[in-house]
Amino acid sequence: LERLMLSLAEKVLAGDTRAAARLITLLEDGSPEALAGLDALYSHTGKAHIVGITGAAGSGKSTLAASLTGCFRRQGKSVGIIAIDPTSALTGGAILGDRIRMQGHSCDDGVFIRSLATRGWAGGLARAALGAVCVMDAMGKDVVLVETVGSGQVELDIFRAADTTLAVVTPGAGDDIQMMKAGILEVVDIFVVNKADKEGADILKAGLEDMLRAAERHKDEWLPPVILTEAVADRGTEALAGVVTGHRDYLAATGGIEHRRRERTRLEILENLAGITGDAVNEIKTNAAFDKMVAGVLESGASPRRAAAELVAVLAANLSRRKNS
Amino acid sequence: LERLMLSLAEKVLAGDTRAAARLITLLEDGSPEALAGLDALYSHTGKAHIVGITGAAGSGKSTLAASLTGCFRRQGKSVGIIAIDPTSALTGGAILGDRIRMQGHSCDDGVFIRSLATRGWAGGLARAALGAVCVMDAMGKDVVLVETVGSGQVELDIFRAADTTLAVVTPGAGDDIQMMKAGILEVVDIFVVNKADKEGADILKAGLEDMLRAAERHKDEWLPPVILTEAVADRGTEALAGVVTGHRDYLAATGGIEHRRRERTRLEILENLAGITGDAVNEIKTNAAFDKMVAGVLESGASPRRAAAELVAVLAANLSRRKNS
Repeated sequence: LERLMLSLAEKVLAGDTRAAARLITLLEDGSPEALAGLDALYSHTGKAHIVGITGAAGSGKSTLAASLTGCFRRQGKSVGIIAIDPTSALTGGAILGDRIRMQGHSCDDGVFIRSLATRGWAGGLARAALGAVCVMDAMGKDVVLVETVGSGQVELDIFRAADTTLAVVTPGAGDDIQMMKAGILEVVDIFVVNKADKEGADILKAGLEDMLRAAERHKDEWLPPVILTEAVADRGTEALAGVVTGHRDYLAATGGIEHRRRERTRLEILENLAGITGDAVNEIKTNAAFDKMVAGVLESGASPRRAAAELVAVLAANLSRRKNS
Repeated sequence: LERLMLSLAEKVLAGDTRAAARLITLLEDGSPEALAGLDALYSHTGKAHIVGITGAAGSGKSTLAASLTGCFRRQGKSVGIIAIDPTSALTGGAILGDRIRMQGHSCDDGVFIRSLATRGWAGGLARAALGAVCVMDAMGKDVVLVETVGSGQVELDIFRAADTTLAVVTPGAGDDIQMMKAGILEVVDIFVVNKADKEGADILKAGLEDMLRAAERHKDEWLPPVILTEAVADRGTEALAGVVTGHRDYLAATGGIEHRRRERTRLEILENLAGITGDAVNEIKTNAAFDKMVAGVLESGASPRRAAAELVAVLAANLSRRKNS
């Protein structure tokens, strides 16, 4: 299996789409071997422009991603798309990626699309997503679009780990308030008012601009622009693509790109550590001794906090056993 | 401080609302002393009926909670309400609770309302919420309503930790699909179609019922009913309150109540363990040595996974130091 992973990694470096797809699927499944398979790729990353896209359901994120992809392709850039779709077992996930796939880029070799769903377990999604970004960067994609749906902490972590972050809002959807609640406002580089043909687009744009001006900023700091688009008709997206690239240039000129990459690496190390810790906790949870402890705590009216303190020693021992694997 | 907590706990057991409010605020702030202050309360819990309420923004959850509270009060039951509101620093949180407070129960001694917001940090929200449930149970509330907003994993964990779970949907909002995506469908005991005066309420009800019948269930298993309400006019909520109590009776008759309480204790132990682990990881993150490691990994093109493996030993040592605190 280890040898298979090495050969997959080699093929990824040669730009092999099928190998990349296979590796990402294994990452999605949480395969430890696939995670180890990434080790050889990191020294070949750092060239792609990672662009995060978020927005409420129905805001037209996927259509926008497809339209932006068209723009970058016309500039001769290759594009990778990762659609993060935290879904229950019931719907089975992978909806967004399929939607994009249908929108005209399915026959284009320069576009590589994968969706990532967690199958019931939220842990590991950020780790898998960052692994998928590594794969797409290493295989030579110039731009990697990372599309997130929900407003949970994990999605927010993935979103803000991009070099450039886009938030898509639409007129009349009350998105502006939703955004603030999710803590997204503070980390957005570019606002997109999509479905700009709808009533209220200009008011929404003006409102966002007011809000952004009101936020305290340092001199020379990037002031997030608000761009009007009608992605379904490819209107405004060419200008948006220009602003996205402009943000990258701004980051490169100010040293911001190294800062973003450091933040991303930081998150990736911590997500890997969380993965190892999660495995160790899982070992505790699935042990019959834990069921017995729970029953005992409940019966005696003992404190869950004290029970947890007792488990700390078990966890530390589990981790010590894992440290060399 | 420890003595203060003991006295707060004693006052909570005597039903003192101000002491309870103070303890919950300290829990919200993540105070270790407040967590320890709960220790004495657990042997006095297990009497309250814990009811989880979730639904999309605008579904009328808070109005429904207020109307349900009125129903329980008329039955002579005391009610506690915990509104979970994960909010960014920008909006400041605590919106829902205030909204409920204004809806007529503010002068009623039998109703105790607290909202919980995490200030920027999602970790610890579930632990604080379960702690607040413990406080309200121990102070003698007959029914504790726990209202969650978002569809993130933490909110889902809190929601499903209730004895009885209510999902609020509204006609024409596309909520049904949203629900499935969040993995909520599988854990809902009662569906509420609120704003039932709107067009499409009957179709939504029929659609939900079809979906529920299609899901495989064991014989004798609870089939989630779908209840129409117009909470703003107190219409249908009296019947809903009856179904909520009926579900508790069902649980009591089938032994399900012990199962739910075990699941809740299980979660509470694990959330406390996660809190201790989070503190230990935080110690690593805020150490200058970690910044140096991140820079080194990035510069050398090393693997974040390998860096994480190196940190496991540090984490295990940190935990061993904490195990007796």
